[in-house]
Amino acid sequence: MKEISKLMSYRESIKVLDATIRDGGLVNDFFFDDDFVRSLYETNIKSGVDYMEFGYKGDKEMFDPDKFGKWKFCDDDDIRDIVGDNNTDLKIAVMADVGRCNYKQDIRPRSESPVDLIRVATYLNQIPTAVDMIHDAKNKGYEVSCNIMAISSAQEGDVRAALDILGHSEVDVIYIVDSFGALYPEQLQRVAALYTEFGEKYNKKIGIHAHNNQQLAFANTIEAVGDGVDWLDATYAAMGRGAGNCAMELLLGFLKNPKYKVFPVIKFIEKHINKLREQGVVWGYDLQYLMTGLLNQHPRTAISFTKEGRKDYAEFYKEIVAMD
Amino acid sequence: MKEISKLMSYRESIKVLDATIRDGGLVNDFFFDDDFVRSLYETNIKSGVDYMEFGYKGDKEMFDPDKFGKWKFCDDDDIRDIVGDNNTDLKIAVMADVGRCNYKQDIRPRSESPVDLIRVATYLNQIPTAVDMIHDAKNKGYEVSCNIMAISSAQEGDVRAALDILGHSEVDVIYIVDSFGALYPEQLQRVAALYTEFGEKYNKKIGIHAHNNQQLAFANTIEAVGDGVDWLDATYAAMGRGAGNCAMELLLGFLKNPKYKVFPVIKFIEKHINKLREQGVVWGYDLQYLMTGLLNQHPRTAISFTKEGRKDYAEFYKEIVAMD
Repeated sequence: MKEISKLMSYRESIKVLDATIRDGGLVNDFFFDDDFVRSLYETNIKSGVDYMEFGYKGDKEMFDPDKFGKWKFCDDDDIRDIVGDNNTDLKIAVMADVGRCNYKQDIRPRSESPVDLIRVATYLNQIPTAVDMIHDAKNKGYEVSCNIMAISSAQEGDVRAALDILGHSEVDVIYIVDSFGALYPEQLQRVAALYTEFGEKYNKKIGIHAHNNQQLAFANTIEAVGDGVDWLDATYAAMGRGAGNCAMELLLGFLKNPKYKVFPVIKFIEKHINKLREQGVVWGYDLQYLMTGLLNQHPRTAISFTKEGRKDYAEFYKEIVAMD
Repeated sequence: MKEISKLMSYRESIKVLDATIRDGGLVNDFFFDDDFVRSLYETNIKSGVDYMEFGYKGDKEMFDPDKFGKWKFCDDDDIRDIVGDNNTDLKIAVMADVGRCNYKQDIRPRSESPVDLIRVATYLNQIPTAVDMIHDAKNKGYEVSCNIMAISSAQEGDVRAALDILGHSEVDVIYIVDSFGALYPEQLQRVAALYTEFGEKYNKKIGIHAHNNQQLAFANTIEAVGDGVDWLDATYAAMGRGAGNCAMELLLGFLKNPKYKVFPVIKFIEKHINKLREQGVVWGYDLQYLMTGLLNQHPRTAISFTKEGRKDYAEFYKEIVAMD
């Protein structure tokens, strides 16, 4: 049973990262207007959020810049247009996907960049490249985190091996990522115990990035808080791929550190997020995401179902249950 | 840490109660057409649901039958029109609110009724009347449960006293009710420990009825399962007052007893629930419910906000924070 005193008090070591542009960008191809991004930046400062993730360092050889908004690529100059010299307590993050980022060229030294944190995202089979990216970013002066994706369908032995390799790397934070929204809190507790075991051994912080397929993104995030996980991803109104993420307004309402304030988040959602929805941008819990979560599958079939405007849930269920 | 073996296996003692008509009726004044209710009844049988709650035994002296659908009153004949002799494993429940039900007159002996379970709903200060209603229903041959509402704003000493009184009564099941959607899973765990302590002492089953103000209705329900709570309320697509309830499709996906089947639930939602939404019936998580949940307030202000079609969340937050 978790300490009620820890629920009433708070841990200074907790960091909240706003992933709205990065994970939310996956549902609008990163076409946010500058007013949205600037207002989000200002709101994060007011709300006491610790890190704001702007988007991906996508490789322009792989992704056509005409087909995506600029936050798919996160040029330093574009970030600087929003944050200036960023003389604030809010730190700036970008995500660099293994295999989709020309990191040696596109990530400039931190001394020349507004970015503070490089978030390396990897699948288990790509860990050696992830380690090279971590080393590259560290050498350039950045804080570095590493997200190991899709662990709910991985062997525990493989996850242990990956954590051991990352433990020996220069990474600062290792993230638990429930890519499929498949984990229940009781399972998350076990995953957190595994990650914090390696975190303590190698002096790494542990983070959590949850998805809301089963309406458990927030529940799993606060479960993780109780289990000693310090870095917490959230997005405004849970905006993110498929079923979305842990909602920032829920998370800041839960955290007791007085530096976190929920009211600016509410104001931002009222002004900016509902407009996105009215424009037809779609995310959030729906039956198709529940189904892929339940079956511990990647949500790509559910995302297609959503994009096609389908509502024949029962037929979809038959399709994905039949898949081998 | 909860036993993973208990997550993989299942407890025979778990009962699932469908409260769609009763709690969902609070958002459409119980105007469900017979096709909806009959189809729900048939779906509950196919899904392995244990109890189906039809609605309230509302006092027709207090509530105008012209202003509500028939499930506000649940006449035995109306239930019989749907279930016939109900020669199935699905049991029938109705709710009787303390102070809003003419129970001595309106609840007929079980031998004359299609109903199996009377669910007495009470606030802490009404416990003596609740005990009289329990006695009355038991005398008439029913199974009886008792929901103590709004406990998140109650003194633990008062809850203990109520549990002791109910322990001495003839009630079969005592329900934890998070009326305001204010409890976090860690708090729910403590509440469950308190209720199961009395449940073991007096040989009563314990149930959980959760609300989704903070997207925790399902998370709190499965937390309760892990804590030894056996009776679980859910509604299709989480239909219910304000932010809604624990979603049946999530709960049956989680429970491992092979008698529970999620596919019929998905079919029902596709055919019937989306139609309700298209007709303008509104429920589910939204910022106004998060706020009343966070502040541990009754959601009635948030319900008014919703009914008025307001979207000025920030103004609403100021209003309810300012209230004494």
